[in-house]
Amino acid sequence: DEEQVKGFAREFDPQPFHLDAEAAKGTFFQGLVASGWHTAAVTMRLLVKGGLPIAGGVIGAGAEITWPKPTRPGDTVHVESEIPELRPPRWHPDRGIATIRSETRNQRGEIVQVLVAKLVVPRRT
Amino acid sequence: DEEQVKGFAREFDPQPFHLDAEAAKGTFFQGLVASGWHTAAVTMRLLVKGGLPIAGGVIGAGAEITWPKPTRPGDTVHVESEIPELRPPRWHPDRGIATIRSETRNQRGEIVQVLVAKLVVPRRT
Repeated sequence: DEEQVKGFAREFDPQPFHLDAEAAKGTFFQGLVASGWHTAAVTMRLLVKGGLPIAGGVIGAGAEITWPKPTRPGDTVHVESEIPELRPPRWHPDRGIATIRSETRNQRGEIVQVLVAKLVVPRRT
Repeated sequence: DEEQVKGFAREFDPQPFHLDAEAAKGTFFQGLVASGWHTAAVTMRLLVKGGLPIAGGVIGAGAEITWPKPTRPGDTVHVESEIPELRPPRWHPDRGIATIRSETRNQRGEIVQVLVAKLVVPRRT
């Protein structure tokens, strides 16, 4: 909601298009939008709370992220994920890298974020 | 600090290594660490508050991000940025894409995050 969007922005991304609906009208977004980092953080919550079945937790080494559309106050988002690659360990005998591709979509099915993350995962002995 | 690390994690990344110093000892990180998304959000605050000189604001279309080391409670981070590329617009006569590469470093000079972001920037007419 609007207060969540503004609250995150006050702490981490204090720009007019995240803070003030009136001021946001005259900007690139033509209205209030959530920080992309807020969308990323909510996506992470959905991944963790949704119980991504990886032993030891969701530990990111890195990621590619795009925001094709902004998230706006009142939007409801969900995440759809797939694991296109699970790479055997190169140096570590006890761990590997899982690639997880997550699309965050709003209530109209529009993609607001694509996140392709590399996760550190433990390997069975 | 520890409360900020836990507070962000409770809201967005509720995993033991971000929430509980005792439980974190037995994990991959061997102690409490900040969520990578918390490091990303703090980096954004530093970029915005530091006054990145881009007209219209810091508007990311996408980014590549890596976390070579975790941020831990008590760490102080700063950001060093460069703009290696400023691309002329392909479709839009009134905007372009700036690449900004930002290293987030802790008080020991260790890189905790590398962020290479594509920003939407307005073009002078």
